[in-house]
Amino acid sequence: MKKLLVSAIGLSLLIGTCLMAQPKKPAAAKSSIDQKVDALIAKMTLEEKVGQMTEVTSDVVSKTNSPIHQIDPEKLKEAIMKYHVGSILNVTGTAYTRQHWFDVITEIQGAAAKDRLKIPVIYGIDAIHGVTYTTGSTLFPHEIALAATFNRNIAHTLGEITAYETRASYIPWNYSPVLDLGKSALWPRIYETMGEDPYLIKTLGAEVIKGYQGNDISDKYHVAACMKHYLGYGFPMNGKDRTPSWIPDRYMREYFLPPFAEAVKAGARTLMINSGEINGVPIHASKYMLTDVLRGELHFDGIAVTDWRDIQYLNTRHHVAATQKDAVMIAVNAGVDMSMVPYDYTFFTYLVELVKEKKVTMARVNEAVHRILKVKYELGLFERPVGNPDDYPKFGSEEFRMASVQAANEAITLLKNNNKILPLKKGLKVLVTGPTANTMRSLDGGWSYTWQGDQSDKFAADKNTILEAIQQKIGKDNVNYQPGAAFDSLLNVSETVKAAKNSDVIILCLGELSYTENVGNIDDLNLPLAQIQLATELAKTGKPVILVLAEGRPRIVTNADKLSNATVMAYLPGNEGGDAIASVLFGDVNPSGRLPITYPRYANALVNYNRKNLENGNSDDSHGYNPLYEFGHGLSYTTFAYDNLHISKPTLNANETLTITVDVKNTGQVEGKESVLLFISQLYASIAPDTKRLRAFDKIGLKPGETKTVTFKITAKDLAFVNDVSKTVTEAGEFKIQLGSQTQSFNYVSNLDAPSRTGRL
Amino acid sequence: MKKLLVSAIGLSLLIGTCLMAQPKKPAAAKSSIDQKVDALIAKMTLEEKVGQMTEVTSDVVSKTNSPIHQIDPEKLKEAIMKYHVGSILNVTGTAYTRQHWFDVITEIQGAAAKDRLKIPVIYGIDAIHGVTYTTGSTLFPHEIALAATFNRNIAHTLGEITAYETRASYIPWNYSPVLDLGKSALWPRIYETMGEDPYLIKTLGAEVIKGYQGNDISDKYHVAACMKHYLGYGFPMNGKDRTPSWIPDRYMREYFLPPFAEAVKAGARTLMINSGEINGVPIHASKYMLTDVLRGELHFDGIAVTDWRDIQYLNTRHHVAATQKDAVMIAVNAGVDMSMVPYDYTFFTYLVELVKEKKVTMARVNEAVHRILKVKYELGLFERPVGNPDDYPKFGSEEFRMASVQAANEAITLLKNNNKILPLKKGLKVLVTGPTANTMRSLDGGWSYTWQGDQSDKFAADKNTILEAIQQKIGKDNVNYQPGAAFDSLLNVSETVKAAKNSDVIILCLGELSYTENVGNIDDLNLPLAQIQLATELAKTGKPVILVLAEGRPRIVTNADKLSNATVMAYLPGNEGGDAIASVLFGDVNPSGRLPITYPRYANALVNYNRKNLENGNSDDSHGYNPLYEFGHGLSYTTFAYDNLHISKPTLNANETLTITVDVKNTGQVEGKESVLLFISQLYASIAPDTKRLRAFDKIGLKPGETKTVTFKITAKDLAFVNDVSKTVTEAGEFKIQLGSQTQSFNYVSNLDAPSRTGRL
Repeated sequence: MKKLLVSAIGLSLLIGTCLMAQPKKPAAAKSSIDQKVDALIAKMTLEEKVGQMTEVTSDVVSKTNSPIHQIDPEKLKEAIMKYHVGSILNVTGTAYTRQHWFDVITEIQGAAAKDRLKIPVIYGIDAIHGVTYTTGSTLFPHEIALAATFNRNIAHTLGEITAYETRASYIPWNYSPVLDLGKSALWPRIYETMGEDPYLIKTLGAEVIKGYQGNDISDKYHVAACMKHYLGYGFPMNGKDRTPSWIPDRYMREYFLPPFAEAVKAGARTLMINSGEINGVPIHASKYMLTDVLRGELHFDGIAVTDWRDIQYLNTRHHVAATQKDAVMIAVNAGVDMSMVPYDYTFFTYLVELVKEKKVTMARVNEAVHRILKVKYELGLFERPVGNPDDYPKFGSEEFRMASVQAANEAITLLKNNNKILPLKKGLKVLVTGPTANTMRSLDGGWSYTWQGDQSDKFAADKNTILEAIQQKIGKDNVNYQPGAAFDSLLNVSETVKAAKNSDVIILCLGELSYTENVGNIDDLNLPLAQIQLATELAKTGKPVILVLAEGRPRIVTNADKLSNATVMAYLPGNEGGDAIASVLFGDVNPSGRLPITYPRYANALVNYNRKNLENGNSDDSHGYNPLYEFGHGLSYTTFAYDNLHISKPTLNANETLTITVDVKNTGQVEGKESVLLFISQLYASIAPDTKRLRAFDKIGLKPGETKTVTFKITAKDLAFVNDVSKTVTEAGEFKIQLGSQTQSFNYVSNLDAPSRTGRL
Repeated sequence: MKKLLVSAIGLSLLIGTCLMAQPKKPAAAKSSIDQKVDALIAKMTLEEKVGQMTEVTSDVVSKTNSPIHQIDPEKLKEAIMKYHVGSILNVTGTAYTRQHWFDVITEIQGAAAKDRLKIPVIYGIDAIHGVTYTTGSTLFPHEIALAATFNRNIAHTLGEITAYETRASYIPWNYSPVLDLGKSALWPRIYETMGEDPYLIKTLGAEVIKGYQGNDISDKYHVAACMKHYLGYGFPMNGKDRTPSWIPDRYMREYFLPPFAEAVKAGARTLMINSGEINGVPIHASKYMLTDVLRGELHFDGIAVTDWRDIQYLNTRHHVAATQKDAVMIAVNAGVDMSMVPYDYTFFTYLVELVKEKKVTMARVNEAVHRILKVKYELGLFERPVGNPDDYPKFGSEEFRMASVQAANEAITLLKNNNKILPLKKGLKVLVTGPTANTMRSLDGGWSYTWQGDQSDKFAADKNTILEAIQQKIGKDNVNYQPGAAFDSLLNVSETVKAAKNSDVIILCLGELSYTENVGNIDDLNLPLAQIQLATELAKTGKPVILVLAEGRPRIVTNADKLSNATVMAYLPGNEGGDAIASVLFGDVNPSGRLPITYPRYANALVNYNRKNLENGNSDDSHGYNPLYEFGHGLSYTTFAYDNLHISKPTLNANETLTITVDVKNTGQVEGKESVLLFISQLYASIAPDTKRLRAFDKIGLKPGETKTVTFKITAKDLAFVNDVSKTVTEAGEFKIQLGSQTQSFNYVSNLDAPSRTGRL
């Protein structure tokens, strides 16, 4: 029996930095950079300072109506020489070549070098799952699929490769990762999150950040990460993007804040602010969130940048500022460092006026500018404003592609496999059908070559759709194809049914087309009726139905799932997703993904795993917690048995560590990977405790018959919650551990006073 | 032109008390009662005191398995002599005769008179919309329909008649009104609320309470009201009854608290506590809610009673108490006065122990007992524990029935009336169809003769269903009837379609069967597909479809409403509802109801009227606020024109009153009633302001051609909101008034300091 503490899945170290590297803590260097920054600030005019705080879109410096994103030298000159803009963000229409990016960035930094103080511009981009806007880049699965892998190494590698390819595009700043809690299944950005669990998000999120930033963000392979969206963006009340949330402070701290706190510890250098409002307070106007919590409690010292137009929205959407100028005052005083304006120079003009009128202090401006310039120094932009084209031989390489393949392979989640119908034999005749069967849009989702991902079939034409991958896997002769339905209408059903009757098995691919942000808003979580009707008609043939879901959020598929023999959740698995799905279906890959979100059964029964008993209300209530599939669910082609759960002591004291071990054995016939999830429940607490919480996980590989012992270490801190007076406490009492089928209890003995019983809301 | 400040709809004064009577403020008497209570408490043992705080169900003192609710003298004796129980609540299986109630109450009070101190028992019952559990009583529309009348007089009269008939059943304590904010359309108790607007709830709620309590609750026609459920019970996150809510303190105060604050001012003597938990805090364990806010801020001095088993649930459902005994300690120390245990004496036993162990102080017990005994004295129970059967000649009278008729008539809300198809001519041949067409269960809802209202067709057999009322109205020969569908399955559709073809018009009655509490939980707000399919099949005939909705909550009917020529919302209109619907359909009543809730268009697009722009998010977002019908919507068979909106000054100062007048003219051909709704918006505030808020309303009657001037008075207090530090403030700025089609703006000039800008969540 092999013992291991940290699993090693065996991802090769790709880029030459240490995989689990800690973020840089450059004590001496930091002081040297701070000195440089201070010296520079001392030379700057008010206008030059405010310019640094101004971020405009690339459109502002580009030719009007140019078919591609071409710099307009006059506009660029105005931006740099007149407004001293510190940052430009990307809103290109589509993806461009590395050469184009080289030309654009060279021109921008060339202009910056002509300004009095020669401060380089920081160019930012959404490289959300790989470098979205550069042709030939390595597109990974989206974060929701990354989360399904439960694999720290994959998260780290995704970060490293994306950083490499972002720098290969001459861009040093990536607006990623999303660390939002994916709590509303309706929300159109669920797929950009790592699901509904704070521990999973914070653990993988920190790995992505370490991958982006490496040991030193000044090196040519790393970028500044931007953790987003601070804070509370994942739970709009009505499910629509950027609409109001109700989140009590204690739950903000319990569920939403930890991934950001962990990201700060991991060294994330920048942060983007949530566009929404919480309890009526737009975060862009919240001194409490942007200064008291972010700086005072989390000790974040990087840049806080707004999201798109959000200072202006304080006036026009949230109505907390009576004028645009008031909006600037409120936001900067709350703690905003940089405004993504993005289309004009009003922010610049108003902020200069406000400082002169003493409505914003110079100290506040200096603080913001210090943070911005510091990151520019850290990124090496002063020495090397544009990278060297020859430094990136691995851009779009096979090596990188294989990392995306592995991510997709480990993401695919087998939800159901009646009578072990999967894996399919390769000699079978299959019908491939459904609206997601033959489009890259349903694999890549939004943020792929374009904002809405609507041109992936062109840009990723060399990648395999699900259909193409299956054809490649088992031969075209064995594959029938009928679309059967578009996303919300039936297409030639009788032909499709006929084809089904002539096949051995039906691979029915349902789900969603690409979207993001408000464009992806929906009014009903039920999958459009046409897709369910297609499932119904096909099931009537009596042929086995393999349901494959390619979708950005868990649309209600209950009536299709009822009819399927097996169900496979593919999320948005990226450019290699078609091949990964085919590999799973035909047994070349043994699936190991687990749901990072609760899959709901009904449109108006949206719950999360952590409160299931309470959501259930009365025990005699038949309409309680009853999801289609639970958080953490996922099957394998082999079986794993858990045994010998052991805890090092029955009673844990305040400063001790509890060691938990469990044996996991592969009791099936094939090699497989298992995500070992440690859930802990506190039985009673001063406020209603969560039913259970994920407190640790590991992922291991096991050959048939092999056993490994997995070890977890737990301290009081891992058992804490935020109480009724918003304090993080660990209360004495009984705790229950769950690891697979094994459970154990222990007692925690606190040295704290009696629990708070104010009952404050 | 006739001027009036308060409209007089002309409800006759039914019971001889002043309609708009203020609650009793018996300064001298109060002190006298307090003295009596203190003297009695001085004589009481600990056990006698704890007994007063104990409420058990009538089952506990009844014969086991008795076919009807029959007292078991031995069990009763044990309850009174051994446990000194202060209160018994009703859980009869069905409704009983007045005589039966007389026998039961006489036996209970007789037993109480044998105990050492002869303290009468207070018997409590849910007389939710009239006296639920007494045969022959006057059943009114449910609260949601009452709210649709927007008529203070009707609310008051409902209270008076219900109090009369409750006392006629020898019961002095009514667990009503529900003052919860009906914010989740899914919640199975929406129909028990007065809708989604705090001002509407607080205004009508106070009238109901004044009706219940009159000038003096010791008189034989009045009862103690029980405002419920304090606080925050109307917005479970997943829509299921008694499941967790997330409600920030500021919104608790902004939206949920005002109806209770107003009810305390109106003199409500008792209060029932919300069974749910808010932000993880069960209200039954919240010292903040039950003592700091309820007593310290609202100055409520009546009884706070738990809901069903809720102290026990602190242990078994909410897990904030490790034992049942801890649960008692936590609840009583938080501020609970009386425990609805309800099935055993564990509360009694534990509380006696806890006082002896000094974990609950005697002062806390004395405080609770003082409140309980005081209400018993106020109710006159010491002098007259059982009423006189001959004192209630109006019980179930025609006079009372007519009050219910008026309530139903004014509740029915005409949502759509294309080409003025309504009112129908009486000579037409009509098909009446649909699952709600011929059952009293869909008119009376839950809390009617039984808890779930499942025997209304038996107990209200003499009342008219929609079908029977139409038959009576236009003659049986003119009416075809086919059920067409049960609630979730089609029934003989081809016969129904044939009948439709042979008729001039189709009256399609859709909606819900009776339910309440967790039994009414649903997982999808969409009306069952069968009902929509019935609408579709009938519409294909080309005959005009009149859609009548009888339902406890706004189920999604968008695809049926699209096909209808007219749509009538009947809510749960009570025993006279069938006649009211028929009277509206055939023009004997001109409808004047207005929606007290937003009627949603889609199952996952649940919004309220007050935040529509913000819920909309981006202005270019097509998935924002788009309900099927708005809050306040309701048509008439006549038309009303608004003109001459006038405000007394363009700038309002802190201590001034703004007088707003508007002329309303009946510009149509028939007499009608109009609810005049005053909406006010603050354009900018320190937290995101509501888009608009109902700040006043009046209901007037107008003959054709008649004009009345309606006057409203507004002060700074009416413009206040709860800010980011939970303070109620009125901030300076511009306000917009909307009255019908008329709008005006004014400025408020505050003498406060600058608004808070902490941005606290």
